[in-house]
Amino acid sequence: MTLLEKSMENMIEVFHSYAEKDGDGKTLSKKDLKKLLEAELPGFLKAQQSTNIVESIMKDLDQNKDDKLDFEEFVPLIAGLSMACEKCYVRSQKKSKK
Amino acid sequence: MTLLEKSMENMIEVFHSYAEKDGDGKTLSKKDLKKLLEAELPGFLKAQQSTNIVESIMKDLDQNKDDKLDFEEFVPLIAGLSMACEKCYVRSQKKSKK
Repeated sequence: MTLLEKSMENMIEVFHSYAEKDGDGKTLSKKDLKKLLEAELPGFLKAQQSTNIVESIMKDLDQNKDDKLDFEEFVPLIAGLSMACEKCYVRSQKKSKK
Repeated sequence: MTLLEKSMENMIEVFHSYAEKDGDGKTLSKKDLKKLLEAELPGFLKAQQSTNIVESIMKDLDQNKDDKLDFEEFVPLIAGLSMACEKCYVRSQKKSKK
């Protein structure tokens, strides 16, 4: 398995390790999402000013408004964060080339 | 760094390792994309029937039609593949529980 394939598999497995904690095992409840963010994306969570950040992320991602996130609803969070991180990566590469 | 953070970093670094091969170092040319797909997503590429799959992927992803893919144009490919893989993951989990 290549690094890119392994990275995609990791995302799927991390999602499911939290989705299986309660409920139907295939979706994240708000509680699951909170636990995932706290444990897997602590830096992102700390950087957020808003106190009810989990609620607003849930609201943004929950396309079908069923108060649960399936994987397809979760992926845009990772995509968005990756895009933000990539901009930092490019800036840090520029600085290191100066 | 958590597994999820590392996976996002891997995606960024894999993208940039191919983007830096030629041109402006921040985008994938069609040649770069072909090399990336062949080396990093061989299974996906082999599974495609179409012979000019790289052209059609490039066309689908290249939102601003500049014949190059920046990271934001590349991420939907990974998001789409992850969603497809997740469906296989769920099916395989169901089978293993029977």
